[in-house]
Parts: sequence; C-alpha cells; structure tokens
Amino acid sequence: MKQALTEKEIVRKIDSGGILTPKGFKAGGIHAGLRYSKLDIGVILSDSPASCAAVYTTSHFQAAPIKVTKDSITKEGKIQAVIVNSACANACTGQRGLDDAYKMRSLTSQAFNVAEHYIAVASTGVIGEFLPMDKIETGIQSLVPGKMKGNAEDFQTAILTTDTVMKSSCFAAEINGKTVRVGGTAKGSGMIHPNMATMLGFITTDANVPPQHLNTALKEVTDITFNQITVDGDTSTNDMVLVLANGEAGNEPLSPEHPEWSVFVQLLKESCESLAKQIAKDGEGATKLVEVSVIGAASNEEARAVAKQIVGSNLVKTAIYGADANWGRIIGAVGQANAYVNPDLVDVKLGSIEMLKASNPLIYSEEEAKAYLERDKIEISVNLNVGSGSGMAWGCDLSYDYVKINASYRT
Amino acid sequence: MKQALTEKEIVRKIDSGGILTPKGFKAGGIHAGLRYSKLDIGVILSDSPASCAAVYTTSHFQAAPIKVTKDSITKEGKIQAVIVNSACANACTGQRGLDDAYKMRSLTSQAFNVAEHYIAVASTGVIGEFLPMDKIETGIQSLVPGKMKGNAEDFQTAILTTDTVMKSSCFAAEINGKTVRVGGTAKGSGMIHPNMATMLGFITTDANVPPQHLNTALKEVTDITFNQITVDGDTSTNDMVLVLANGEAGNEPLSPEHPEWSVFVQLLKESCESLAKQIAKDGEGATKLVEVSVIGAASNEEARAVAKQIVGSNLVKTAIYGADANWGRIIGAVGQANAYVNPDLVDVKLGSIEMLKASNPLIYSEEEAKAYLERDKIEISVNLNVGSGSGMAWGCDLSYDYVKINASYRT
Repeated sequence: MKQALTEKEIVRKIDSGGILTPKGFKAGGIHAGLRYSKLDIGVILSDSPASCAAVYTTSHFQAAPIKVTKDSITKEGKIQAVIVNSACANACTGQRGLDDAYKMRSLTSQAFNVAEHYIAVASTGVIGEFLPMDKIETGIQSLVPGKMKGNAEDFQTAILTTDTVMKSSCFAAEINGKTVRVGGTAKGSGMIHPNMATMLGFITTDANVPPQHLNTALKEVTDITFNQITVDGDTSTNDMVLVLANGEAGNEPLSPEHPEWSVFVQLLKESCESLAKQIAKDGEGATKLVEVSVIGAASNEEARAVAKQIVGSNLVKTAIYGADANWGRIIGAVGQANAYVNPDLVDVKLGSIEMLKASNPLIYSEEEAKAYLERDKIEISVNLNVGSGSGMAWGCDLSYDYVKINASYRT
Repeated sequence: MKQALTEKEIVRKIDSGGILTPKGFKAGGIHAGLRYSKLDIGVILSDSPASCAAVYTTSHFQAAPIKVTKDSITKEGKIQAVIVNSACANACTGQRGLDDAYKMRSLTSQAFNVAEHYIAVASTGVIGEFLPMDKIETGIQSLVPGKMKGNAEDFQTAILTTDTVMKSSCFAAEINGKTVRVGGTAKGSGMIHPNMATMLGFITTDANVPPQHLNTALKEVTDITFNQITVDGDTSTNDMVLVLANGEAGNEPLSPEHPEWSVFVQLLKESCESLAKQIAKDGEGATKLVEVSVIGAASNEEARAVAKQIVGSNLVKTAIYGADANWGRIIGAVGQANAYVNPDLVDVKLGSIEMLKASNPLIYSEEEAKAYLERDKIEISVNLNVGSGSGMAWGCDLSYDYVKINASYRT
C-alpha cells in the first residue's frame, strides 16, 4: 500500500497564477495622478462577499485605513472589495485622515454598489500627508468594472512603491474532492524612501472557509512567513495582510476539525512564504536573498527568534554583501537572540560548508566560502542542539544602494 | 541662604584628565606584534588592590577573558591589574581559549608580582582565532613598570580596533571633604571589521567605595549611559565595563546611605556618559552624533527603550546621513518600541524645530530642518505625554562608509 502524501506533496504550484486564478475574483488598477506616471489605485473585487481575515501592523501608530478596514471586517467577517492606493500612507493624519479613509470606503461603496462594511481600505506611501481626495474620487470612479481593463498585473503594479518587481504566487490542491486555489500578491521593499515602509499582502482563495477559521489559519501562517522577513528591522504604520475566501471552489466549509484542514493551511503557507521571499529578495538595495534556517531550538518560537536575529543583523548583512564568510557575526547575532542557547553546542553552516561544530571553529576553504557567498541566494543553517524547535527567516544583504535609497530626499 | 547645589553642579569636568588623574594608578601599552604596527597590549595598575565592579556583555557567547575576569572578581571583589589585548577577541575558542586566558592572567601575575585573583583580563578583536601566546608572553614582560613608558595614551591606544580616535574622560567632586576623581577610557566603534565588535570601558577612581556598593553604582549608571548607545544593534561577545576604586582620595567608605552617595553616582555617570558619547560619535562610518531625548513616558525604562529604538533605526540613521527631515521614520521607530504609547499624543522635535504636536503634523521650514541636519550633532526630542519617565540614547548616522567598512574582507 502506498504511503499517504504529505500536505507539502499535495499542494502544487501554479506557475503563472495569481490573485485572479481562484474562481470569482476581478481586479484592476489605474493611474489617478497620486504618482507621476505609475498606476496608483487598485481594486480587488469578489463576485460575492467573501470570508475575510486580516493581520495588521503592531505599530502603536496604526494608519487610518487600517482602522477603517478593521471596522468593516468586524461587522460580518466578510469583504467583497479591497481598495488600495500607493504614494500616500494616510498615517499620522489625525481626524481628517480618518474621515478621508471612511470617504474612500464610501466612494468605493457607491462606485461598485457594495455595502460599506464589505469594503477594505489600504494605503501605502508617505507618512503625515493627506490623501488628495479629488484624485482618489476620480480614480475610484474610473475603476468601475467595465471601465477598467481588469487584470491582476494592473492591481499588482498600482500597489507598489520602491519595489522593483511585482510579486505574485499561486498554489492549488484538492480538498474535499474539489480543486481549491490560493493566489496572492504583495508589495514591500524594505523601509523605503520616503517612509513608504509598508508591507501589504492580498490573498484570494475560492476555498469555502468561515471567517473565524480563516483567521486561525492566517495567524498561524503569517507567524512563519510574513512575520519572518526583515529588510531593516523597521515596522510600518500601514502593514496589512488580508485573505478573501469566496467559497466558489464548492468544498464543504473548512475548520480545524476537518480532515483536510492541514492541506488548506499548507496551501496558504506556500502562498504566503512565496510572497514573503519575493519581498525579501526585492528589499531596498538588495543583491541577494538570505534564507536562515534554525533547528535544535527549545521551541519553534525560539528558533524563529534566532533566525530573525541573524537575518536582521547589519553585520551579517554587510558581510554577505561583501561575500565575507564571517561566521563570528552569525554567532554574534545568535548570542543576542531571545532564546535558550548553550554556548558550547552551536553548529553553523553556510550552504553545505560547515564552519562551527559544537561551538568550535572548523577549518574550511575561504575560497569555497567566498564563491558560495557570490550566489544570489544564500542559505545559513544553525543547529542549537538543545531541543527540537525549528524555524526560518528571510532577508537580504545591506548594500551601498540601501544607504543611497534611504539617504535621499523625499522630493 | 543659598540653595544647595545639585549633584550636576557639584561635579566638575577635568578637561585633560583621564585614567591616571585619580591618585594611585599607573598605565601603559606596548606593541607585541599582534597587530602590524599599532600598540596592542595595555595594562592599568593600581598601587594597591582596588574595589572592583564590572558589567559584561549579555551575549550567550561570553568570551574566555570575561570568564577569567569574573573568576578573579568573585574572590574578593578587588582588582589591582587589568591586562588587555586588541587584535584577537579570544571568543568561540573553546577550552584552549579559556586556558590561554588563564595563562594570560598568570603571566601578568608573575610579571607584576600581583596575586592572580587581583587580575582582570580583557580581549578585543577577531572571533574564533587563538591568542598568539608567545607574543602575549613577551608583551606582558615588556610592560613591567620601569620598562614601560607608562602613560594613559599608550593604554588608550593599545585597546583600540577600528576606532579613529582615543576616548577618555575625567570628572572630580568634593565628597566627605576630600577631592574624589573618576577617570575613564573606552574603545568601540560599532560592529567593526572583522568581528572586532567589542565595547570596552575602564574607569579608575581614587574614591573609597566597597565592592558591593561600587557594583550598585555601576549598574545604575551603565543602564543610562553605555547601555544607551548603539551603532548597529549588534552585541559583542567581549563587551565589558570595569571600575577600579582604590580609595586613595581618603574619603570615608561610600554606600547608598551616605549623604553624598548621589554625588559619587553623578561623578560616575558623567564619566560614563562622556565615554558613551565619544563611542557613538566614533561609530563606524559615522559623520554625526545623534542624541535622542524622550520625556513623558510611563517610566524611565520605557523612555530609554523608545530613545534607543529611534537611535537604532536604520531608516532614521540613513535619513540623518542624507540630512532628510523625515519625521515619519521617527514615528515609525516610536511605533515599534516596547513602551506604552498613546498614538494621539506624541510630540516630535528636531533640535528646536517642532515637527509633530499631539501626533498632528506641523508646518515647518524644510530648509531650516535640512540646515539643522547638516550639523555634526543632531538632537531629536520626543514627548510621549503619558507620564513622567525620561531617558536618553546616543548613536550615529548610517553612511556608505559603514557598508564599506563592514563589507570588506577580514584579511
């Protein structure tokens, strides 16, 4: 008898897929004049109100659009339209900013004939400036289905700031005898000139999942994907990841008790992890994707903390930029992490090159290590050898261009 | 009747003073061949065993010399000689490294005729390499009083790595009718090519303070001085601040119950704060000293956390390097800090320029702000308006040179 497939084996990647691959979604993006020439307002529209779950920035300063989106989702846990603008974050804008975000919601409600509490609002761009509401209004009206070209690329482009590439992912699996698809897009390029620091993620799925369970799955998955990337350690006022599940796949409602729940979670995880890595690789000034894998920790949480400490260390990042196999900096970061570490037991590998075994330096070829570090994906593995916890984190190197991008003026 | 002077008014700066200004100390430094041509081994010697207190790195990987110094201090709380080498950190060097650090202590004991447990050992330099013990031995022997020139500058130079300047400070006050002096030196330039990340501080005083009380004062002071500087957020395996109090000022023993205890603490604080600022200003690639002052926090601890978050933000650091008055990045950092923040009440000032009042953006002159940011000392003030806690932190900007210094090879 054949052994049962793992969740990872059941889930398959759809190479050219994205947010419109799941059934029953439309999307578009237009140029409303918030930016010089690029698309700057985008919309995702579900054929019917979809189950919705979202996670938000932990910043004390949550931007106005986040407050409005929370207000919408709280009502029924359903969202049908997501309206997003770039160029202006509408953060630290006081009561006027909050009024503007609600106005953006009501304009979308009227234009798309969708109840206000079925609308999510997101913004990304400069902190402390007000939305140009006349442009927002004209823009939203020109997005109405029929008027807009309506493709995933326009939406994906409209949400970008200093990103150099669009991000998208799509995965599918059979669940309850039905094909279920999860598509996603995201923006975020690090901390970003000028204050456009936001990470936004939008995931669509045709799975049938009630809001409360969708929420459970999203929280579980973001902890090991989006929350494990770092470009420079700064958290934006506008970060948001939002999942819409419209049920058009026709599967019976999923919950943690369903035998195929773990397949759905894996599907969501693959989508989010793919987007998270695309963001890390497109970090400001980045020349390399860095993937850190930690095993042997006291818990998964501690493994993730150690991985994120390594990938976030300026010293590790500059060493990787310079292709310098400086494992002392990896140890420096591990030494600082909020985790149980036995200083006599740590192993460190760069790709397959062993550098430290039970905290003792090994002899390795500097040439081989340097050659490895000149690749465009760098893998660092650490075994703490104190437990069975594991975790990963993703980031990028720190280059001259990072300083250049972030030292320049806002104008 | 005249009002009593504050501690700050009682303490006076001695401009050309340093570790040899307090009575009863000698110091020296020599070139032992650990570095190409610079001085690389230094010693501080007290005429008699001095009360000693020390604070160490919180890294899980404490280097061998730290273990040896702890072992010495634990015996009687007294130290007479401090031996320091640069170029090699003797960290992550296993049992052989620990044996070498003990050997360095015993060589110093023999050369200076001082009991082993009166000797502190410190190292700074590359992680994961062994000390060249033959050079260490010859070096220590040539440091013996009479053979060495014996001045503070030689010691201050011998402990440097990528630092571009020596650091020293000296303050004095009348305590218990006697003149008490506190002198200090430190090294540390950020995270430093290659792994020479260490911050070392050595403070001498002729005050009479028993070890346990000296320890209390040092912990209180380091929390608001050395622990509030950051160059790039990385913590070394070798950090150490050590105070020697030999009692030669002739004052009666000080303790927290003594009416002039607060004057002694202020004396120590001024010395440590001066050194901390010198380190921040000499951070790798730094062009500016950044001083962040936070008031109105729920507690002093929270004020310090917010100040350190701001001064440690890569985005704030690059904006300051680029003279960009990007207050949104300051808000971004405040938003992330581990402190109670009411997002509607925050004030932000750059120098005397008000940028944000009760979390609402103010109109200010971009030209004036840019001109301010082109100075070599930048002051950022934040009022959280939720309590009476206050705190400060110091750091530097993030420049191309930081990347250059840290991306280059270890050779």
